[in-house]
Amino acid sequence: MDTMRLSDSILSGDRRALSRAITFVENGDPEARALLEELYPRVGRARRIGFTGPPGVGKSTLVCELARFWRTQGKTVGIVAVDPSSPFTGGALLGDRIRMASIGTDPGVFIRSMATRGALGGLARATYEVCDVLDAAGKDVVLVETVGVGQSEIEIVRVADTTVVILSPESGDGVQAMKSGLMEIADVLVINKADRPGADALESQIRATFELSSSRKPPAIFQTAAATGKGISEAAAGIETHTATMERDGTLRAHRAERLRFRITRLVEEALARRLAHDPATAAWLDRRVEDVLAGRVTPADAAEEALDRLTSGPDRGVPRRPARLAK
Amino acid sequence: MDTMRLSDSILSGDRRALSRAITFVENGDPEARALLEELYPRVGRARRIGFTGPPGVGKSTLVCELARFWRTQGKTVGIVAVDPSSPFTGGALLGDRIRMASIGTDPGVFIRSMATRGALGGLARATYEVCDVLDAAGKDVVLVETVGVGQSEIEIVRVADTTVVILSPESGDGVQAMKSGLMEIADVLVINKADRPGADALESQIRATFELSSSRKPPAIFQTAAATGKGISEAAAGIETHTATMERDGTLRAHRAERLRFRITRLVEEALARRLAHDPATAAWLDRRVEDVLAGRVTPADAAEEALDRLTSGPDRGVPRRPARLAK
Repeated sequence: MDTMRLSDSILSGDRRALSRAITFVENGDPEARALLEELYPRVGRARRIGFTGPPGVGKSTLVCELARFWRTQGKTVGIVAVDPSSPFTGGALLGDRIRMASIGTDPGVFIRSMATRGALGGLARATYEVCDVLDAAGKDVVLVETVGVGQSEIEIVRVADTTVVILSPESGDGVQAMKSGLMEIADVLVINKADRPGADALESQIRATFELSSSRKPPAIFQTAAATGKGISEAAAGIETHTATMERDGTLRAHRAERLRFRITRLVEEALARRLAHDPATAAWLDRRVEDVLAGRVTPADAAEEALDRLTSGPDRGVPRRPARLAK
Repeated sequence: MDTMRLSDSILSGDRRALSRAITFVENGDPEARALLEELYPRVGRARRIGFTGPPGVGKSTLVCELARFWRTQGKTVGIVAVDPSSPFTGGALLGDRIRMASIGTDPGVFIRSMATRGALGGLARATYEVCDVLDAAGKDVVLVETVGVGQSEIEIVRVADTTVVILSPESGDGVQAMKSGLMEIADVLVINKADRPGADALESQIRATFELSSSRKPPAIFQTAAATGKGISEAAAGIETHTATMERDGTLRAHRAERLRFRITRLVEEALARRLAHDPATAAWLDRRVEDVLAGRVTPADAAEEALDRLTSGPDRGVPRRPARLAK
């Protein structure tokens, strides 16, 4: 693949090129890295907004309606919908996606579903890079929606400039939502399905809880009924205000730097774990140490220290590195 | 601290010594490592059983009743209750813990609450080691209970021999529970609060879903009403059967080896991340690279590769290692 031509096509707005590029990135193809190098100078202009919340609160519908609203403002929109790739989830999520299809025909909207690849994967590994590609492709806003369970609901803050937590009066007792740690990551809080009973009570309860806790002030709270469009423009404005305020006071840049620091560290960890798992000599050594730990001869901490010493003991231990980058 | 004397006290059943040891491990004190080395030859006899599920299904009550049941069988029990250390959760969780206090006075039961240290932490870092300490201290069963949200519900499989997923007829639609990836990690499934309407329907729904999915056969399913004691002995027997079967067919050992492999890899990753964050030269280098990435000059992947090369470029780059182990 000629990554330079592909990146040119993406920058010129070719949807099929964008789709192909995302597939490369998602699969971790070797071409992906060269492609991201081509695209990277254009990355950083999009607003990245993360959406999470318990299952059933209407996240997809809300994201869809917000996308529609931003389109009326002339903004282009990328949507990344992260699905758990559980064998049990096909049907339910398909329904969500069909709802989204109604805006999928708008050339100013690009929607991509990504699987988390197993319950243990959390947010799909490649989500960050897919956002980079959509950003480079010129989308003004990139919306990332995750099913609010497992790791993904927490990892969303590692991807988004602004994190929107969505609840509904039906998503169970507000106290339970607070138990989950969701409140701590909310930059903006949306109570969706607010046309059903209990929305005001839930909002009061949330405000009271934040008042009792001195640790932070409450996020902006909005009530919406995405299915009827109620409150969408207000919620959109609230989200924009959050990002704009961050930009003005410099916290946006600081947040992005922190996110990158985390991202780079994670990539280093992954590369190291790959070396531990795939270098035959190291893997065989690890097998022996696991036996030693099981027999009580060594602690995991001692085995880990020895592993780190092995891995950092010289510039060339014959450990295979990743394939050389493609020539451009 | 004389870790040898402390480990002797733990092995002789001194509860205060056990409590102190867990605090050392939880805080990551330098003494913890020497202590674990003392204890490690005694680790591996306890059955470790993990409990997770959505908030509100009655996990603490069920764990409590199971502990009481195993006590009547003459088994000693350690309980590790992992709490999200959210500023919002104090009240609700305190309630759970008060309920647990009723068995906390039994000298054959040792209960320890651990905080996850922030929403991003997932299962408390030290949970694994705390289980090791309780195991070495001679507890026959170690029960680990996590609030079933965030990373912890998934990470429980990294700690437990047998993972018990708890639902209740009130925990929302079964489909939603399945969306969450919880079904994939369940070795045993308990429908608690089964005295309330909908328990049979939920069980049928779960069985039907497993039948439709060819990917695995359903776990054993039990209905309990922990508050009244109904079904507790059956659920306890089901859990014991799962572990005993694993032991007989060799999968227990394989599972423990796999868990250790993951654990050691994680420890190596953590040590490497510490070096990235705390070695002044490396941290300054990382700051510059973060700026380069923000400016679009370098991709995160390229920065990560450079970081790994820096970290593995020689045996002695002046990067401070962890403090030398205490002389015994």
